[in-house]
Amino acid sequence: MSRLEAWSVDGIGEIVAGDDLARIVGDAIAPHAPAEGDVVVVTSKIVSKAEGRMRHAADREQAITDETVRVVASRAHPGGVTRIVQDRNGFVMAAAGVDASNTPEGTILLLPVDPDASALALATALRDRFEVAIGVVVSDTFGRPWRAGQTDVAIGAAGIRVIEPLAGSVDTHGRPLVVSAAAVADEIASTAELVAGKTSGRPVTIVRGLGRHVLGLDEPGARALVRDADSDMFRLGSAEAHAEGFAEGYAAGLTAARVAAPTEHSSDTPSHAQEDPRPA
Amino acid sequence: MSRLEAWSVDGIGEIVAGDDLARIVGDAIAPHAPAEGDVVVVTSKIVSKAEGRMRHAADREQAITDETVRVVASRAHPGGVTRIVQDRNGFVMAAAGVDASNTPEGTILLLPVDPDASALALATALRDRFEVAIGVVVSDTFGRPWRAGQTDVAIGAAGIRVIEPLAGSVDTHGRPLVVSAAAVADEIASTAELVAGKTSGRPVTIVRGLGRHVLGLDEPGARALVRDADSDMFRLGSAEAHAEGFAEGYAAGLTAARVAAPTEHSSDTPSHAQEDPRPA
Repeated sequence: MSRLEAWSVDGIGEIVAGDDLARIVGDAIAPHAPAEGDVVVVTSKIVSKAEGRMRHAADREQAITDETVRVVASRAHPGGVTRIVQDRNGFVMAAAGVDASNTPEGTILLLPVDPDASALALATALRDRFEVAIGVVVSDTFGRPWRAGQTDVAIGAAGIRVIEPLAGSVDTHGRPLVVSAAAVADEIASTAELVAGKTSGRPVTIVRGLGRHVLGLDEPGARALVRDADSDMFRLGSAEAHAEGFAEGYAAGLTAARVAAPTEHSSDTPSHAQEDPRPA
Repeated sequence: MSRLEAWSVDGIGEIVAGDDLARIVGDAIAPHAPAEGDVVVVTSKIVSKAEGRMRHAADREQAITDETVRVVASRAHPGGVTRIVQDRNGFVMAAAGVDASNTPEGTILLLPVDPDASALALATALRDRFEVAIGVVVSDTFGRPWRAGQTDVAIGAAGIRVIEPLAGSVDTHGRPLVVSAAAVADEIASTAELVAGKTSGRPVTIVRGLGRHVLGLDEPGARALVRDADSDMFRLGSAEAHAEGFAEGYAAGLTAARVAAPTEHSSDTPSHAQEDPRPA
């Protein structure tokens, strides 16, 4: 019977740029006798700190811009503008993950440049040190559409099955499960959040009992959790998509009206403008 | 130190309409000595079966329509049309949660009519029987925008803090955490999924160690996890919002063109049509 245990470990002090995170995390989990199949969940915060991703708070808006590959949605509110963006790793989140909580006064923290690489480096070091197969998840706290509150998800992973395709499995009635794929790494991050919390100062959590998901270091990282844009029905915010549609519709309406009632100004209107101008 | 344990219990057979779910779940967890602060996670599937929410598979599309309060997005694909909809309880999900996995051949299953009420009935019965404060989560498997795979979330809850507002807390640097609110009930559902899986036939999971979140039966249910539509930047699918914008823009473009180049057909155009017609 599968039994899962999760607990956060003590002994991680304030991390600063250049710290040897693998040694610090290893020292913190060592008293817990790391076992074959353990998953070690570390918050992105300590990874970012070790990697020197701290900036001055005054540079926050520019930092978000720099971290952004694509703006998905934005909304003005009394405190400023919330931007939901996609970052270089494909993840979509508020403010590109730039955050000021649990950072020194006057500073902000960017996400690790390549959280999968960070996870891989950590998993490699922990496996070498403890000589057992350990998986690593780098977690961050994301909001989501339609549901209040945030959950922790995986933005980096190594040595684990991040997503479990259930196609090929059968349900309890013997019929194939076709479309399901459990986002295992996200569920592990959420489990860790339940014991670590946001205010505890314990950014490293051991999740024990999921050995069936702990695999080789050549497993795909958390980037495998990025949804293919083609299959995403929420690629753009509703207001942004509406505005794009309005602009296109407005131009098409102008054209159609000028074709229907030509004036000297519309002599260069192409002849196909009477066709339905809506995109397919 | 907070330590969480989770495991799924045996002894739940195939549930049919009219089954006394509280007795069956109680019998299944009894050998595990239910303790103060335990959370019992049950899949929506067995709740729906006990409540007789089974329909003929041939009625699937109509069932989805009947369960839908608002269509958020839809997309045609070779196998049919995927509809992302909001249901009567406010939850947004694919196909209104209508599902054919783990149901008898030729049948489909609708979500419980009121999963919070189902959770409350179960929590009440379990507290009466075991004389300890037990929380209940009714879980279901949801996809999400931007990220591949699904995670389990709470669609019903009783006797637990479903969302933990962290405003008023301070971070490890003593500064207030303003905007965070952990979606505790969703994270509990995801934890349970990790041990229950989709193919195990073990739809009841005990999560132990979260007693700080187990509260009175008057706590708000999972409906508290429904995001306020006003704060939701993804209220409509991108294609749907684009189409709405296009139609409005097209009408505005026609009007503007007719005002700019009046003909006999535009004599009734209102005088304010030259103003920017975009909605504020």
